[in-house]
Amino acid sequence: MTDPRFLRSQEAILTAARALLLESGPTAVTHAQVAERAGVGRATVYRHWPRTDLLLVEAMATVPMPFFDNPTVPTKDWLRRELTAIADQLALDDVRAVSTTLANSALWDEVVDARRARFADILTTRLAAVLDDAEARGELTLVLPSDHAAALTIGPLYYRSTIERSAPDTTLVEATLSALGTWTTP
Amino acid sequence: MTDPRFLRSQEAILTAARALLLESGPTAVTHAQVAERAGVGRATVYRHWPRTDLLLVEAMATVPMPFFDNPTVPTKDWLRRELTAIADQLALDDVRAVSTTLANSALWDEVVDARRARFADILTTRLAAVLDDAEARGELTLVLPSDHAAALTIGPLYYRSTIERSAPDTTLVEATLSALGTWTTP
Repeated sequence: MTDPRFLRSQEAILTAARALLLESGPTAVTHAQVAERAGVGRATVYRHWPRTDLLLVEAMATVPMPFFDNPTVPTKDWLRRELTAIADQLALDDVRAVSTTLANSALWDEVVDARRARFADILTTRLAAVLDDAEARGELTLVLPSDHAAALTIGPLYYRSTIERSAPDTTLVEATLSALGTWTTP
Repeated sequence: MTDPRFLRSQEAILTAARALLLESGPTAVTHAQVAERAGVGRATVYRHWPRTDLLLVEAMATVPMPFFDNPTVPTKDWLRRELTAIADQLALDDVRAVSTTLANSALWDEVVDARRARFADILTTRLAAVLDDAEARGELTLVLPSDHAAALTIGPLYYRSTIERSAPDTTLVEATLSALGTWTTP
């Protein structure tokens, strides 16, 4: 397993998966496209990662998390856009696959659990910081400590997508925005 | 696979798993306890269901869903108790395992997807009916159509449990209750 060719092809596959993920989203991370981009045979990709969802989990670990970054004011408009983007992503089968694989595999696999913890922490921490700033500026009064905000807003979208298996819509996004507290901005 | 002994042991295992689930909860559904209760060898249980979480998914399909049943008035108190019970269940590792296995395996397995759909529909439909009645009695004004209520209330608890991997607490339960709309009862 420490065969240098094995490690080289593994690294080439991960690099290709990351590039495809960043360029074209999770649907592009197929065995065929990863093999072509990495310059290896399709069988080699299968040997390293029989399931593309686990390859995606691995590739995502080193890809910047695009949500709740670069906040703008008014915060409510920014958050509506961010939650809508998350809802749109969660409507994709591949994102359903990656997020439920992450949640499920994390229960038995420490490496996957570390990925899960990293993603969850980034979302929770970023959103809490933005909402604390917004509250300090008088944009809203939160009904609960800001570190609950990720669960309160993303949770309904995630449940709709992965348990109810339908696309989260505007009505649900607006309800999660209102759930956070009283906004003084429209 | 149509060997009658195979089918008999399969049915005995499922019956035993259901009985253990109802009597003692998901933690009781282990290979050893199921084998003892079903009167078969442990290896036989492993042969039918190598993973107890998938056996649990199968067993749950014929077990009554204990949530959002038998509503009482005031609805807010009843719903607080129900959501607290769901939160307590979701804090258990075995319930995490079953619910994330259900969400993940449903993406690739039609039988599991049918289970997922059944559970999701029961929760969504029951809660919507109770909230419609409560609104008709003037107990609250909903901020959104009642069929969104399950995602809005269970979603945050599920996300907290399976993505953030901590126990859903009272603060989060109260916030999901408030998220539904304006309660006229305290």
